[in-house]
Amino acid sequence: MTAITLRPIGILHCDLKKREETPKNFDESEHTGTIEIFPEFHEGLQGIRKGDTIVVLFWLNRADRTILRVHPRGDISKPKRGVFSTRSPVRPNPIAVSELLVEDINDNILTVRGLDILDSTPVIDIKNNIS
Amino acid sequence: MTAITLRPIGILHCDLKKREETPKNFDESEHTGTIEIFPEFHEGLQGIRKGDTIVVLFWLNRADRTILRVHPRGDISKPKRGVFSTRSPVRPNPIAVSELLVEDINDNILTVRGLDILDSTPVIDIKNNIS
Repeated sequence: MTAITLRPIGILHCDLKKREETPKNFDESEHTGTIEIFPEFHEGLQGIRKGDTIVVLFWLNRADRTILRVHPRGDISKPKRGVFSTRSPVRPNPIAVSELLVEDINDNILTVRGLDILDSTPVIDIKNNIS
Repeated sequence: MTAITLRPIGILHCDLKKREETPKNFDESEHTGTIEIFPEFHEGLQGIRKGDTIVVLFWLNRADRTILRVHPRGDISKPKRGVFSTRSPVRPNPIAVSELLVEDINDNILTVRGLDILDSTPVIDIKNNIS
């Protein structure tokens, strides 16, 4: 099967600079930051409102793509498992799925809460949260 | 920002052949099918068990990537909105996020329930469901 090409729609700005200080999951985080959507995709934001919960897909550009088994949550006392049975950032296509609260929206800038993602990570998609 | 390259980890087999007969969302579907994981990624499945709910990311290879505004759920009586405020398959990077029930697992074949995705769609990631 042929390779697939993605184009980032935006980029995350936040104060999480190092992996060690990053929460393990979005549901454990109160970190806020801003998502800058690039001008050519700005129109796609229409309808997103302050107070909405959105699903954001990030491309984890610093994650290892070659490892298929990991210790769950990095805990070496637990036996290794397949990456597809975890939410480790390590995986063949390192995409994170986060549910984030929209605290504010101004033009192409979304202020969001609930981040467990490093600063400068590319954003590849945003969806309505139906759950 | 440079382009990103994904490699499919597997492919979906199911009886949904046409868009018109496909449920609008995974939470409205009882359709079952099988996900075939390619041999080089098989090890990543270790730890997934029958009865688990998994999050599966699909690459919607038949979706339009150029449209930024759509009628919600295809209902033309509703005004168009930005694709990022919907779950339309139409979007710049057409990735679907589905929560599916694992009905069975045999080697590299997962039988799953809850499909709203067309037959032969590439699978790009599988995650543990924490919600």
